[in-house]
Amino acid sequence: MTIDAQRLWQRLDALAEITEPDRPWTRRSFTRRFLAGRAWLAAEFAAAGLDVRLDAGGNLIGRLAGSNPDLPPLVTGSHSDSVPSGGRYDGMLGVIAALEVAQSLREQGRVLAHDVEVVDFLAEEPSEFGLSCVGSRSWAGKLDATMLATTRPDGMTLREGLQYVGADPDRLASAYRAPGSIAAYVELHIEQARILESNALDIGVVTGIAAIRRERITVIGRADHAGQTPMGERADALVGAARIIDGAYRDALAGTTPACPLVATVGHIGNVKPNAANAVPGQAELIMECRCLDEAKVIGLFDDLFARLSAELTAMGLEIQRQVISHVPATPCTAAIQDTISAAATDLGFTQCHLPSGAGHDGMFASHAGPFGMIFVPCLDGRSHTPEEWLEPEQAAAGARVLFETICRLDAQGAASL
Amino acid sequence: MTIDAQRLWQRLDALAEITEPDRPWTRRSFTRRFLAGRAWLAAEFAAAGLDVRLDAGGNLIGRLAGSNPDLPPLVTGSHSDSVPSGGRYDGMLGVIAALEVAQSLREQGRVLAHDVEVVDFLAEEPSEFGLSCVGSRSWAGKLDATMLATTRPDGMTLREGLQYVGADPDRLASAYRAPGSIAAYVELHIEQARILESNALDIGVVTGIAAIRRERITVIGRADHAGQTPMGERADALVGAARIIDGAYRDALAGTTPACPLVATVGHIGNVKPNAANAVPGQAELIMECRCLDEAKVIGLFDDLFARLSAELTAMGLEIQRQVISHVPATPCTAAIQDTISAAATDLGFTQCHLPSGAGHDGMFASHAGPFGMIFVPCLDGRSHTPEEWLEPEQAAAGARVLFETICRLDAQGAASL
Repeated sequence: MTIDAQRLWQRLDALAEITEPDRPWTRRSFTRRFLAGRAWLAAEFAAAGLDVRLDAGGNLIGRLAGSNPDLPPLVTGSHSDSVPSGGRYDGMLGVIAALEVAQSLREQGRVLAHDVEVVDFLAEEPSEFGLSCVGSRSWAGKLDATMLATTRPDGMTLREGLQYVGADPDRLASAYRAPGSIAAYVELHIEQARILESNALDIGVVTGIAAIRRERITVIGRADHAGQTPMGERADALVGAARIIDGAYRDALAGTTPACPLVATVGHIGNVKPNAANAVPGQAELIMECRCLDEAKVIGLFDDLFARLSAELTAMGLEIQRQVISHVPATPCTAAIQDTISAAATDLGFTQCHLPSGAGHDGMFASHAGPFGMIFVPCLDGRSHTPEEWLEPEQAAAGARVLFETICRLDAQGAASL
Repeated sequence: MTIDAQRLWQRLDALAEITEPDRPWTRRSFTRRFLAGRAWLAAEFAAAGLDVRLDAGGNLIGRLAGSNPDLPPLVTGSHSDSVPSGGRYDGMLGVIAALEVAQSLREQGRVLAHDVEVVDFLAEEPSEFGLSCVGSRSWAGKLDATMLATTRPDGMTLREGLQYVGADPDRLASAYRAPGSIAAYVELHIEQARILESNALDIGVVTGIAAIRRERITVIGRADHAGQTPMGERADALVGAARIIDGAYRDALAGTTPACPLVATVGHIGNVKPNAANAVPGQAELIMECRCLDEAKVIGLFDDLFARLSAELTAMGLEIQRQVISHVPATPCTAAIQDTISAAATDLGFTQCHLPSGAGHDGMFASHAGPFGMIFVPCLDGRSHTPEEWLEPEQAAAGARVLFETICRLDAQGAASL
């Protein structure tokens, strides 16, 4: 065995216990509970023999020194914060498995050429400041003054939030990792969907993180009396919204392929006015998002949908306003790291497939500094961001073993080959 | 001239001024402002020479005695309460015009055989108690103990609300009007839609009040990660809801005819869960209503829609729950009263058409007691239940003149002919 599966699982349990007691499993970034989790992690890092520090971006780092101080570090980890009423494994698995890899290497006296850095990135989940991937953004130099001035509902600024967790917003440049400054960043994560489970596969080799585009779509019609207004005279904003919702669904269903999955979702509807049983809706607001590794398909889905619906919505007296909320380009995983993960999984006897990540991860920013790869393991029924989030201990261990083997092979290959 | 058009208009203005000053035009039932409006009305009734009383159901009644005390009364009126930020004419026009008819008759020394009762029904609009047509329900014996026990948000019961406005909930039987106890009930009202205006018509002869059915439709799917869940594995409740919304719209558009208008509306959407941009919606709730004079078409629209959608929604992993919120049968207007209104309008030189009322009115309950008819006049752009509600003084006068002529002709015809 290369890792201690029992210790891995026990640590996942122990970290999970640091939760708001009345709504497990909740450990929100920038809270006392989060700091308690961090204190526990720092103690575990230290007990495992790692050099522990917090960088100016609020990332907790445990370093296992390699034999060649001239080489950039191999970095692995994830995040320890959760969504409200979230799960015990999203993020936590990647941090605890990274610790397990480093500790196992040290206990086995296996000295790699590269340093190994175990990292717990700050605030990967969208926090009360409305921003995700706060810590990894600092590695990419993308935590700017506007973001630092953002306030959460109680008035605290993100700058103050960073200070609260021990980061140093005035010295963010010291957290910056220039391109080429890391040998690789590899993260283990639960899949958060059912592709691996449905196909009874052990390991997912991530091909990249999909481009994500979100738009706020406002449909403006005319509120009218629902009883007195003939069907032909209506400008029903909710009917227009319904055609957009169904159209996005049908277009993504038609456009998705196994090789290049495409998803489109209207997850939010709001500001339906007057939203009364006896009134024709005069307004409705949607948030529509689309994700795909192929960014052109993302943009195309939006544009084609509205080009197609434009005439009929206009004929219905409806006006459509589109506002881009966010547009994040795709982050491909480095081909050589995909190959290394795949070979490691094969040699360890695990079944696998390649698949993209529709969800965002810290690799979107950490990849700025060097080659990037991700390992997925299945989770029960694909459920995540919910207290029911679950994977079997052996599934967690399988992921950690592939991570261990991947780190060892990347060390042997050297960063230059990536 | 049979009525005083200037006095009619001045009274509409004067009553409108009794509004919550910071949100015109608002005079909600069961409020101090409502009582102020009632006090003004009672004084106007009395000054016009009517015998004024409040019945046990909270309806303000002004009586002009006829020559034959053995005949049942001819009743005309509407309601003086408004929706929040409502208009100045919905309801008010029917009350003020009824007063104008009675006063004109008296001033002209024209004594009818029947008594004429001018009625301001209590709380036609849905009040904070969630119930509409409170006063007219008492005429039909349909204000029951369960309704009286209903509370509004501040804890007051409807029983207490009735007492607050001077009604007597313990003697509701005295407000009851048995079938045959009135010669006719005729109400003048704004159309609240654009059929008359679009066709440049002066008068609408109402054929009946449509049946109204409302159902709460709950679509249950499965919440999932919007990025990670492939399109083919989703049970997206909002997509299911969208197909219902659009399906109801298309079916009503296809099923409506000029002779028998049919409308279907999803006016409310709520309880979308989790309603987050990055989550596939797991649940959505709609309130869908359908209205038509032909009750079978109302029931058929619901049943046909869900029968047709059932297979595809099930295939999408969605469960549909239907709950009937309300089902009110149609209230046809008495044919002989339609004929009388139509003839009166013609003889007065007004253009006209027959049309159903999609909106509910007190006639749904007052018709329990005798023959029933309604007169519509156009309102600007069909707008109602909004501060912009408007009609021209001459349009209001035309309606009042047709009402005057209709009451006179019904008196001459006698109730027995209806």
